[in-house]
Amino acid sequence: MSEYVRNLWYMAAWDHEIPESGMLSRTLLDEKWLIVRLSDGAYAMLADRCPHRFVPLSRGRLENDLVHCPYHGLGFDRTGACAHNPFPAAPPSHVRVGTMPVVHAHRGLWFWPGDPAKADPALIPDFAFVDRAGMQRSSLTIRGNYELVSDNLMDLTHAEFLHVTSFGVNGSIFQGAQSVLNERDGAIWNNWDMQGVTPPIWAAAMLAEGDRVDQWLHMRWHAPASMALTVGLARAGTQRADLVVPQMVNPHIITPETQTTSHYFYDHEATPEAEALARQVFVEEDEPMIEAAQEALGAMDFWEARPAILETDAGAIRARRRLMQLRRAEAA
Amino acid sequence: MSEYVRNLWYMAAWDHEIPESGMLSRTLLDEKWLIVRLSDGAYAMLADRCPHRFVPLSRGRLENDLVHCPYHGLGFDRTGACAHNPFPAAPPSHVRVGTMPVVHAHRGLWFWPGDPAKADPALIPDFAFVDRAGMQRSSLTIRGNYELVSDNLMDLTHAEFLHVTSFGVNGSIFQGAQSVLNERDGAIWNNWDMQGVTPPIWAAAMLAEGDRVDQWLHMRWHAPASMALTVGLARAGTQRADLVVPQMVNPHIITPETQTTSHYFYDHEATPEAEALARQVFVEEDEPMIEAAQEALGAMDFWEARPAILETDAGAIRARRRLMQLRRAEAA
Amino acid sequence: MSEYVRNLWYMAAWDHEIPESGMLSRTLLDEKWLIVRLSDGAYAMLADRCPHRFVPLSRGRLENDLVHCPYHGLGFDRTGACAHNPFPAAPPSHVRVGTMPVVHAHRGLWFWPGDPAKADPALIPDFAFVDRAGMQRSSLTIRGNYELVSDNLMDLTHAEFLHVTSFGVNGSIFQGAQSVLNERDGAIWNNWDMQGVTPPIWAAAMLAEGDRVDQWLHMRWHAPASMALTVGLARAGTQRADLVVPQMVNPHIITPETQTTSHYFYDHEATPEAEALARQVFVEEDEPMIEAAQEALGAMDFWEARPAILETDAGAIRARRRLMQLRRAEAA
Repeated sequence: MSEYVRNLWYMAAWDHEIPESGMLSRTLLDEKWLIVRLSDGAYAMLADRCPHRFVPLSRGRLENDLVHCPYHGLGFDRTGACAHNPFPAAPPSHVRVGTMPVVHAHRGLWFWPGDPAKADPALIPDFAFVDRAGMQRSSLTIRGNYELVSDNLMDLTHAEFLHVTSFGVNGSIFQGAQSVLNERDGAIWNNWDMQGVTPPIWAAAMLAEGDRVDQWLHMRWHAPASMALTVGLARAGTQRADLVVPQMVNPHIITPETQTTSHYFYDHEATPEAEALARQVFVEEDEPMIEAAQEALGAMDFWEARPAILETDAGAIRARRRLMQLRRAEAA
Repeated sequence: MSEYVRNLWYMAAWDHEIPESGMLSRTLLDEKWLIVRLSDGAYAMLADRCPHRFVPLSRGRLENDLVHCPYHGLGFDRTGACAHNPFPAAPPSHVRVGTMPVVHAHRGLWFWPGDPAKADPALIPDFAFVDRAGMQRSSLTIRGNYELVSDNLMDLTHAEFLHVTSFGVNGSIFQGAQSVLNERDGAIWNNWDMQGVTPPIWAAAMLAEGDRVDQWLHMRWHAPASMALTVGLARAGTQRADLVVPQMVNPHIITPETQTTSHYFYDHEATPEAEALARQVFVEEDEPMIEAAQEALGAMDFWEARPAILETDAGAIRARRRLMQLRRAEAA
Repeated sequence: MSEYVRNLWYMAAWDHEIPESGMLSRTLLDEKWLIVRLSDGAYAMLADRCPHRFVPLSRGRLENDLVHCPYHGLGFDRTGACAHNPFPAAPPSHVRVGTMPVVHAHRGLWFWPGDPAKADPALIPDFAFVDRAGMQRSSLTIRGNYELVSDNLMDLTHAEFLHVTSFGVNGSIFQGAQSVLNERDGAIWNNWDMQGVTPPIWAAAMLAEGDRVDQWLHMRWHAPASMALTVGLARAGTQRADLVVPQMVNPHIITPETQTTSHYFYDHEATPEAEALARQVFVEEDEPMIEAAQEALGAMDFWEARPAILETDAGAIRARRRLMQLRRAEAA
């Protein structure tokens, strides 16, 4: 199994996922972490494991911004210091719980598992677009390594086999042109552009019989696996000026839970139908493939399994290579 | 754990087990394989794992003798070559899925996991007898290494403890003579012959009170664990000429699913009662012992656990030694 | 994972746990053992694994003080010798099943997994007190390493967080004095003594409003994890002479089932309420913490996880060090 890249921002949760209690326990990069919302609106992340007897602090309680261990009652503050001792004595200063930098941005909580001195919030990829009316943010867990989920998203041709009904696709991608681009900020784009093709079924009602469309599917990737998908549809021959529907951008942000499971952060229109459709696509259509690939790999590394590389993998493979370079740089 | 002997014929399935779809996925020797029935009546075996992103081809579909991957739509032919590309371009010739030789014989599908050049169908043990009227072929999976199942079958004295009611045995085997024979074709026979003994309960109705019988139980073994049991019962003193019932031969063909689970291919009269009795004997009476032995061994090799050897083990141990010689020869 | 100390008495079962059949199978120190009650009232412990094909002897039957294997019918006596052969031949003398010394003492069955020559019954810790009227002995299994269970019992401050309601504690331990003592016989005592404190809620009915009490909680530990807890409550200022309730002593005897699970032998008043309360405390209150600590440790050794040491750990840590010394002495 590959190591994780440490000096990167990963998303831990949407802000609304922290419950009333102010504490959310989540496994991130194979370790249990406690995301804490403090009374001043700031957030902290503490290892969800008391340094004394290793029990989860999340089973304790948050009181006056201190997290109290459920087993022997020690209390920890946002810096990880022991700040409460149930005995009439000073809290033991040698007892500390681990912490990570955490930043609240784009409705998400982002953590930096590497060197805190390098944790520059400006490096968080831009997901400002998620904060718009009528949308709801959700998350789920996928049984597969986060790079297998990236592979899925960075090669949208799979929609023609897995999402035919749910997305109403019609094979137009096979007439499209693929381009893969790098940006200075580290983004990798895997873009599909289709010109003068038959419109997808869901758009038929907005078009006249026989109308052709230009369609584009642009996936932006930032390490480790924080993606944004732009979908556009315009009447053919209008230089994309005459949009059939407003251009949409959606987050597909993947964070490793473990080496074989991933958190998936996404959004959708704030209706029960849209919520159900998103779950259907991710859980019933994509996950079985990703999970099966994970099972087939077992303990093997992806490259060790000698995958056949297709032209359509260009973006996915470039993302995998980027991560490998980052891992090697950190190992060096 | 021991390695498997590769240059041998193993049974993958009874032919009737391949469903209407023409594809059966089965784990054999720790790997998932897809058994495919083609339109010309031939069979093929493909690795049930797309070489691109490792998903099971069995979740796709068989169309015009091509197996189509469910994830990105590549199609593979009986030779494992990629013969269909959803894009308007030639199929990528570097993308191939693994195959194994497969032969349809004795109502079973036999595969050769070793060097295809050595896969001589004449080496398939003779199970022609299974093709007879009134019989039904079945299979199940046993939670135990295939050699533990062989041990069970190559030492029929266990029937006196596990199958007393189901088989109506009466201890006559303890008056029997055991002989172990080798044949040129690699067969090992473990034979029990009883002379002038009390008949088993199931035969009482066909005999007069006090009649004595000669009885024989001859188990034929071929590597890896393909067995045939001959059972005979004749009136004592008739040189086996006056049979109480016609001599019966039944297949007991064992194929490793994994190192700790085995496929069991067998037959029985085509009645619900006979089907239920066979399952009872294998699943309720034998499997708990075999499974418990497997659990007790855990990751230990059989010989490492230093088993006590009894005289009655003579055939079972000879079969184990044969496999060990074959493994060593292949490793060399 | 640490090895077990072999030259010690461990408790296998309460005597009443052996059922009518005379045989109890129990996993002890990672191995399955069969505890057998013989017709003369003696006990034997045999490896619960036939030396021939490794199946559990516990699935067989005990007849005339012989344990008969369910698979091929060999019979074993209390010394582990094969004493019955289903064939008309002498039992094979090279076939033996493993045994351990076992002693019936203090209503328990104690086994010695080390050198039998060193198995001196005088080394069994004194639990004679368990044999008293009105009490019932019980056992359960805890999902945690036995040393994690010792840690729990050797640091009773946890009651103030886990057992507030069940025990009616009120924080008086935080005004107490801790002392840790060694005894010549190997016992380690972890004692808490509280003077002039508010009585626990359960004692209020026996005292006048505002009465103060002296309270003591003395935990005695013997390797590996056989503990006895003495609880006392007296009116303050009476030099412990004026007891509010009679002093109580209860066994808390822990035996490793595996490296990550433990048998817990305890007692309680012979009423359904007391039985239910004991289970609630151990299973609902303590076990989740111990199990979570075990999960957090995973395959890591306790010391490798670098636990923070508190002053209140003094007894628990001294017990851990004693075991480490014993392990090192045996390894040397």
